[in-house]
Amino acid sequence: MNSHIEPVDLKKAYRLINHGPTVLVSARHGGIDNVMAAAWACGLDFAPPKLTVVLDKTAKTRELVEKSGSFMIQVPTVAQLQLTHEVGTHSRFTEPDKLVNAGVQLFSVEGHDLPFVAGCSAWLACRLMVEPGNQEKYDLFIGEVVGAWADTRVFNNGHWNFERADPAWRSLHYIAGGHFYAIGDALSVDEGSKS
Amino acid sequence: MNSHIEPVDLKKAYRLINHGPTVLVSARHGGIDNVMAAAWACGLDFAPPKLTVVLDKTAKTRELVEKSGSFMIQVPTVAQLQLTHEVGTHSRFTEPDKLVNAGVQLFSVEGHDLPFVAGCSAWLACRLMVEPGNQEKYDLFIGEVVGAWADTRVFNNGHWNFERADPAWRSLHYIAGGHFYAIGDALSVDEGSKS
Repeated sequence: MNSHIEPVDLKKAYRLINHGPTVLVSARHGGIDNVMAAAWACGLDFAPPKLTVVLDKTAKTRELVEKSGSFMIQVPTVAQLQLTHEVGTHSRFTEPDKLVNAGVQLFSVEGHDLPFVAGCSAWLACRLMVEPGNQEKYDLFIGEVVGAWADTRVFNNGHWNFERADPAWRSLHYIAGGHFYAIGDALSVDEGSKS
Repeated sequence: MNSHIEPVDLKKAYRLINHGPTVLVSARHGGIDNVMAAAWACGLDFAPPKLTVVLDKTAKTRELVEKSGSFMIQVPTVAQLQLTHEVGTHSRFTEPDKLVNAGVQLFSVEGHDLPFVAGCSAWLACRLMVEPGNQEKYDLFIGEVVGAWADTRVFNNGHWNFERADPAWRSLHYIAGGHFYAIGDALSVDEGSKS
């Protein structure tokens, strides 16, 4: 774990994905790690923090999530554009060396038997809240966030600093094909301007 | 409906929210319309297109969705920053004139008995897929998208054109408090660069 990564208060963990970034989902079971990209991940609750993620039945990562009961959600950066697209379009079922080929490097955090993807801006360790109906009918998985971390060069004191950090730290927002957008300018509402 | 608004092929409707924008949720029942903001809306399936949205038990809009079995999801713009924040922080339960006070203007589309919010960039008409367990336990609502439209000044031929449109058309991505980000630069992956 690089020296810039610090834990995020679980009360503020929702802020790490509130702006709708495309995420990397990773999981570990039986000595196998995998990582995939997902555009369909979303906040679900504040306290305890929960989130949803859609995992297709064709995804090896889904199998690892179901068997291990836990997974990571992490926020990739503009610097990881190619990596994100590759882990989102290649399958470990047909390409056993997928992670090496995509240039994914993993690291560990004590107390969490999960693969953390290096170079991301934020990490959410999740415990699967098993809901067989949602999983089977909708490919919809619910996780309770049990640990959160961020790289302080872009998220500090509970706030994203995209506007002051190097643009390579910006989050990715996938549309379709090879097309993404980066997150853009900060906007603030004057909360006292109308009552 | 202004002359720039055109239907979007349902096969491409997921693209309207795939980049994780904060949305406006609207609904109508018994002569009452309401509009709220939601950061927690997300794609769920492609064909037929489905989406999820989290609606708190304190929201009047939730009551209208449950009673009518339908709702709108629409993508507000930077020009609607103040409006979006206001409908997200005020409740129609305590402020009957909420929509007028926030400057919300509604329009209709033939064949859909739903309130469409004027000035947005995209609209998704949804049929509630009733799932009492999810709604009660998680405040999680699932909708099947039965109609989609976009303003061709920013979404045309199945593609967002944020990079070429006036910046006032950019989508909003909420973090917390009065803090949002606009969507930013377009990024494209060379899909043939690595095999």
